[in-house]
Amino acid sequence: MSYSMVELIRTKRDGGELEPDALRWIIAEYTADAIPDYQMSSLLMAIIFRGMTQNELGPWTEAMLHSGDVLDLSDVDKPIIDKHSTGGVGDKISIPLVPIVAACGVAVPMMSGRGLGHTGGTLDKLESISGFSTTIEPSAIDTQLNEIGVVMVGTTETLVPADRRIYALRDATGTVPSIPLISSSIMSKKLAEDLDGLVLDVKVGSGAFMKTVDQATTLARMMVGIGDSHDTPVTALLTNMSQPLGRAVGNANEIAESVEVLRGGGPEDVRSLTISFATEMLVLAGNESVDSANARAVDAIESGAAFETMLELTARQGGDPHVIENIDRLPRATHEYVLTTSHSGFVSRCDAYDIGVAAVRLGAGRATKEDDIDLGVGFLVEAKIGDRVEVGDPLVRIAYNDESRLQAALDALDNAWEIADEPVTPNDLILGEIR
Amino acid sequence: MSYSMVELIRTKRDGGELEPDALRWIIAEYTADAIPDYQMSSLLMAIIFRGMTQNELGPWTEAMLHSGDVLDLSDVDKPIIDKHSTGGVGDKISIPLVPIVAACGVAVPMMSGRGLGHTGGTLDKLESISGFSTTIEPSAIDTQLNEIGVVMVGTTETLVPADRRIYALRDATGTVPSIPLISSSIMSKKLAEDLDGLVLDVKVGSGAFMKTVDQATTLARMMVGIGDSHDTPVTALLTNMSQPLGRAVGNANEIAESVEVLRGGGPEDVRSLTISFATEMLVLAGNESVDSANARAVDAIESGAAFETMLELTARQGGDPHVIENIDRLPRATHEYVLTTSHSGFVSRCDAYDIGVAAVRLGAGRATKEDDIDLGVGFLVEAKIGDRVEVGDPLVRIAYNDESRLQAALDALDNAWEIADEPVTPNDLILGEIR
Repeated sequence: MSYSMVELIRTKRDGGELEPDALRWIIAEYTADAIPDYQMSSLLMAIIFRGMTQNELGPWTEAMLHSGDVLDLSDVDKPIIDKHSTGGVGDKISIPLVPIVAACGVAVPMMSGRGLGHTGGTLDKLESISGFSTTIEPSAIDTQLNEIGVVMVGTTETLVPADRRIYALRDATGTVPSIPLISSSIMSKKLAEDLDGLVLDVKVGSGAFMKTVDQATTLARMMVGIGDSHDTPVTALLTNMSQPLGRAVGNANEIAESVEVLRGGGPEDVRSLTISFATEMLVLAGNESVDSANARAVDAIESGAAFETMLELTARQGGDPHVIENIDRLPRATHEYVLTTSHSGFVSRCDAYDIGVAAVRLGAGRATKEDDIDLGVGFLVEAKIGDRVEVGDPLVRIAYNDESRLQAALDALDNAWEIADEPVTPNDLILGEIR
Repeated sequence: MSYSMVELIRTKRDGGELEPDALRWIIAEYTADAIPDYQMSSLLMAIIFRGMTQNELGPWTEAMLHSGDVLDLSDVDKPIIDKHSTGGVGDKISIPLVPIVAACGVAVPMMSGRGLGHTGGTLDKLESISGFSTTIEPSAIDTQLNEIGVVMVGTTETLVPADRRIYALRDATGTVPSIPLISSSIMSKKLAEDLDGLVLDVKVGSGAFMKTVDQATTLARMMVGIGDSHDTPVTALLTNMSQPLGRAVGNANEIAESVEVLRGGGPEDVRSLTISFATEMLVLAGNESVDSANARAVDAIESGAAFETMLELTARQGGDPHVIENIDRLPRATHEYVLTTSHSGFVSRCDAYDIGVAAVRLGAGRATKEDDIDLGVGFLVEAKIGDRVEVGDPLVRIAYNDESRLQAALDALDNAWEIADEPVTPNDLILGEIR
């Protein structure tokens, strides 16, 4: 079947629906360099305004996912479940989560990305463990999954090349913020992992790409729908990203906080959300009730099995397990600055976006893909929404290496906190569930 | 001043207004190959949805017009006025119009295009005069304008290269139908002719790009506004294109009809519209009342002065003046087919679009830029809106060379005519005026 790209652009521009074969044709031809970038970017901008229907998203995503290699995990003798987060500030959930789920007998072939903009990336955080490599030969993945139940790696060049190319084009042409394009980008990469099920963490709030529950619901529904059309069960939790998760925002310090959770401690929100996601993943993995799955996740922490898996994962991927055993060995910035409050009262705002921007300025994140990051810098948030504070109490401890970067970060934090006179009740951590 | 193209795309995408320097920067950088096509096409698609304000259109068009050479007509010692039509079916008005106005002492440096799609092009029609060349050395233009008051040529490669490039990109990326982009494309080319004034024929109806008076009014206002910001007076007439103009639709036969008008005959609608446009051009050319201008235009026909100018124009541009003196020498297809009516009554529809499409199928127009055209084929419309017809009366005489093309044309004419029982009053020829 052959099409005229300009006709297809016009159809989308005028609000029509593109047929499945036409969508497959676009992805195949674009990946083969037979459709020029200038036609693709024009179509993408039309999609910004016209959206895509669920009927369109299925074949479009399927075509993307088959644009290159896909993982073949048929030799893995466990249920294969992954989790993906749309990105938040202080969002280290994957790091304690994956060892828990793996310790419960599930295989998690987690491929993730690097941080860009105000949200951090799992790969960067893992690389603060001395020696940890996020590159594994594709052929070694199934062995490692069978043996320890987890790999945590970056995506490869040959996996979903259509997404790589379309994303680069979107980045250069102002066509990033389209919910259907975001959905298909995420789902094409996740479904290329040959999964039996997927749990999505769709973040909502100032520190997330989706600012409202409505937007997040639309995104979650589209992704669950794409899973449906691929016969892969997908559960999406909508979770609160109005303030950072936990206390640590950075890279090495987020590893430290993750290890605390694996040892049975850590901030309550990180622990609770980690167990919720572990429960959802275990439920998807097999015929298990929520209560039983929850109990097994808690037990994986309490028995030390999850911590053991974290040690094994670290060792298998070239990292130094002593760093996990003794988190003081993680890189740490040389200076600390403590930002304190000049008001007494109740914290009513601890803004995830402001803190995320400040983290980039401090050197913990990237403004552009080419930036280097400083693994040892970061924040420890001391006052979160609902907390009672007195004048002089710390709001945040800032680990920094460079005075000018500290100043830039402090500027971004100017309005990050608000102190109210009346008590404040923080919003729920989980705002919705779509499956 | 330097900008980030992706930031400018985002601004337009989100409904913002681009500042004049940014618009000039885009045109300059795009023409210099410093902005890639894929960013330009994405911006153009955003303009399809967001439009452009009059504040944006002025500097955008100005930058386009200065992207290459502009005519220097400072040595021309007459007022310099041009006319442009947005394109219609049977629209040969320019051909009788220009000699009339030139005979009245105005210089008309008319640069026009070729036909594409269902509307014809002045250049193609002129080339049915044996030997007529639509290419003149730019340096010879002012001499010819001083001597005979008219050139009728194609645009050159070096004039408004930004429009040439942007138009080619729009054609390939589904971004043609944007009123601001149409306005800036037309006006950049016309203003590059170093004009003292411009009269626009904005066609409205099935055979035009603007289907409604509202759309045509928007287009006319934008173009008049661009003229304002360039300090060039522009008058736009909105004219009816629900049925073809005159009887002839084709190329050689439209020259014949134009010559009839110059000899004082021709169909009433063509004569009347030609005189209306001549009047507007003469009014723009100098301090002259409408009545006086109208009288001079009529006199230019009746005195034979306009016909003389047509002979001179033809000779100066390499054409054979005998063809103008004897229109039987124009190329003519070898066969004729007469389509007749099977109903008696009053013509209520004689659809310009259907007839335009049929003309392309017959070979009189181009479906794509690469198509050749057959100058001798075409239609003579015998029944127009309001005419009384009896069963067996001719609707149209079709001059054709190829049986299969005739059949294809007849298919397109299937619903071109409608015959009503009650008398029908045709709509006015001129539907509005904007200046």
